[in-house]
Amino acid sequence: MANTTETQPPHQVVIIGGGFGGLYAAKSLNNANVNITLIDRRNFHLFQPLLYQVATGAISPADISSPLRSVLSKSKNTKVLLGEVNDIDPQAQKVLMGDEAIPYDTLIVATGAKHSYFGKDEWESFAPGLKTVEDAIGMRHRIFMGFEAAEKETDPQLRRAWLTFVIVGGGPTGVELAGAIAELAYHTMKEDFRNIDTTEAQVILLEGLDRILPPFAPELSAQAETSLQKLGVTVQTKTLVTNIENDFVTIKQGEKISQIAAKTVLWAAGVKASPLGQALAQRTGIECDRAGRVIVEPDLSIKGYPNIFVIGDLAHFAHQNGKPLPGVAPVAMQQGEYVASLIKQKLQGQTSLPRFYYVDRGSLAVIGQNSAVVDLGFIKFTGFVAWLFWLLVHIYFLIEFDNKLIVMIQWGWNYFTRNRRARLITGKEPLGNYTSEKTREMVNV
Amino acid sequence: MANTTETQPPHQVVIIGGGFGGLYAAKSLNNANVNITLIDRRNFHLFQPLLYQVATGAISPADISSPLRSVLSKSKNTKVLLGEVNDIDPQAQKVLMGDEAIPYDTLIVATGAKHSYFGKDEWESFAPGLKTVEDAIGMRHRIFMGFEAAEKETDPQLRRAWLTFVIVGGGPTGVELAGAIAELAYHTMKEDFRNIDTTEAQVILLEGLDRILPPFAPELSAQAETSLQKLGVTVQTKTLVTNIENDFVTIKQGEKISQIAAKTVLWAAGVKASPLGQALAQRTGIECDRAGRVIVEPDLSIKGYPNIFVIGDLAHFAHQNGKPLPGVAPVAMQQGEYVASLIKQKLQGQTSLPRFYYVDRGSLAVIGQNSAVVDLGFIKFTGFVAWLFWLLVHIYFLIEFDNKLIVMIQWGWNYFTRNRRARLITGKEPLGNYTSEKTREMVNV
Repeated sequence: MANTTETQPPHQVVIIGGGFGGLYAAKSLNNANVNITLIDRRNFHLFQPLLYQVATGAISPADISSPLRSVLSKSKNTKVLLGEVNDIDPQAQKVLMGDEAIPYDTLIVATGAKHSYFGKDEWESFAPGLKTVEDAIGMRHRIFMGFEAAEKETDPQLRRAWLTFVIVGGGPTGVELAGAIAELAYHTMKEDFRNIDTTEAQVILLEGLDRILPPFAPELSAQAETSLQKLGVTVQTKTLVTNIENDFVTIKQGEKISQIAAKTVLWAAGVKASPLGQALAQRTGIECDRAGRVIVEPDLSIKGYPNIFVIGDLAHFAHQNGKPLPGVAPVAMQQGEYVASLIKQKLQGQTSLPRFYYVDRGSLAVIGQNSAVVDLGFIKFTGFVAWLFWLLVHIYFLIEFDNKLIVMIQWGWNYFTRNRRARLITGKEPLGNYTSEKTREMVNV
Repeated sequence: MANTTETQPPHQVVIIGGGFGGLYAAKSLNNANVNITLIDRRNFHLFQPLLYQVATGAISPADISSPLRSVLSKSKNTKVLLGEVNDIDPQAQKVLMGDEAIPYDTLIVATGAKHSYFGKDEWESFAPGLKTVEDAIGMRHRIFMGFEAAEKETDPQLRRAWLTFVIVGGGPTGVELAGAIAELAYHTMKEDFRNIDTTEAQVILLEGLDRILPPFAPELSAQAETSLQKLGVTVQTKTLVTNIENDFVTIKQGEKISQIAAKTVLWAAGVKASPLGQALAQRTGIECDRAGRVIVEPDLSIKGYPNIFVIGDLAHFAHQNGKPLPGVAPVAMQQGEYVASLIKQKLQGQTSLPRFYYVDRGSLAVIGQNSAVVDLGFIKFTGFVAWLFWLLVHIYFLIEFDNKLIVMIQWGWNYFTRNRRARLITGKEPLGNYTSEKTREMVNV
């Protein structure tokens, strides 16, 4: 019964990165006659859209993480490898990890992006970003330590600086962080301190453009701004950050330059692609854009290498309406599924293959407990209904992997109690922003 | 209407430590006419008896932690102070924190204990103990990284060493860790790897005495041993650890000395009291025992200082049946409540005060999913009923603080799915046990 294709060694697919792109590609290939190796630096898939909830003490990292091995334990054609890829050899068709070389027939590169300071890398220690579990734990440390330091501080000016939280960047992450910190200060923790009144805290959201949530329709941006203001957030648009120092953020509004005294500054302004994109570009002569993203062909392969695909936040795909697709989870998921289906079709000998087409099902961002903005294109809505919609969509995608019903119950509980029970200050945080000796001691305990 | 006692400044109670002893004391004083300052290095109370569940990936740190400020937010006479006490001045009646001095009328010292290596501190990097959230995260890192390293290892001997887990100490923590690791290897993760068979892992529990769980009745120790063996744990009693090195544990059984090749060694063998006990002893001339615990009077005060109480794991109380009370949560809770009531009675002018008497309601330890041992004195039982009893008791005490019903639901879910979803390898772990270059790279990702 055996024919020649069955006796050939199976087609080797190597996927680098277990984020939305890589994981959806692997899952879509689980019934294909291929051998898959999924390589990631971490042993878990992280549901990044909810990382801000970890940073603000609502949920724990494990609530939004799924061990890659258990997500893929039923995919018997898939092997998970823990490790960091440092280079790719497209001629030899090998992925290089230290002294190991892993051969591939088809390669999917999905290593994503990290936050970027537009060349001002020295800002990172004062204004951390939010991409990893460790980032979220560090941010949580800073936010809650800010309130603790204010409680101990006797100088009124310094106390005010400890109670000032500046979020740089008015995209979804910035809006979500600002809303969550405002809720912490004005609701959750208002009975918790004896020396300070947490409702005197200032939460300031800075955005360079003329409105927050620029990917949304202007009327939704306006409503989001109103909702944030109701929560107590000060929204400053058309505001450029020109410097971040230990205790100050310098901003430029039109011609006016001023300073905000703030001990806690959080960065939600920009991302740059994973350095593996540059490495690949050097090896293949392809181009990257200014953010380091790899410019891909209509089928997500790279020029001259039809067996190498780049997907997700690492890819610059501009074949749809001229500007690159945004770095969001739905794009990565659809690209992962598309590449998986393309590989299957190629293996079946099909030659007339469709190009990738992104189906934009809409954008959503949450502002606070009862408020969100949803833009589905054909319909736009805000407020409680939008919040409920946001909740359901996120739960749907969370439970798809790992039956995380528990997270839903947790959220229900938090919602009714307005609690954030995961307010742990743990780990030793690089000091950065913590200046006074007293605070330094406190952080080092 | 004012009388003299009302115009006096209120009695100042300072409590050092927000564990079971300190927190129960604070809560019991919440309706008393005193001002309370509770000082802790951390901003949360940790339910330590379940820390082994964090170390083995079943639950998250926040599931067994409660922010001290929210536990005490309704206690308007209580102030929480985040910081580390480095000394006590009993003559000036002050607690010293860096350059701050906090005055007290009554002092309760409840700073607990940490793990101890009986003078072999160099063992710590090879065999970490389990007292803090960071310890648990580090232990989780090692356990899961052991399986990952075995998956990558091609040398069969080294692979076997990566799959060998040695737990030193057959008390409740050691038994609980051994049972949980055996369940991970033989059930939870058995479908997860492609190169190794996790059911070939060895879990070895070492105990110096002639039986595990020495505080329990001998028949319960025997049954616990049988249950552990059924789970796949190798129990070795009358076994002394004479050395722990990078890849080996040296043991002595009678006159026989041998070595176990193991990459993961966990310490559950001994504790020593917090150094604040020694500092207090030097200042007051009182005595500590060999484990550094402060020897207390029948009312838990220290000799010559009726306004200084030492409670919980830091106290050596031997007035009940000659040997000191064990360092377990129920002792600390009862001591906290007793001291609170003593302070209230003294303030009401009562002079005939009762001494402390510990009501031992029994001991319990969990062995695995369906198995535990319970010794209530008048009745002893094991197996599933004991496990259910263990679960209910722990949930009762957990929800007392913080409505942690969520943890119960989580456990129910884990129970039916045999899942451990919190298997995250996070943080950068000091390398210690990780020897080969390849592994070192892997851990550093």
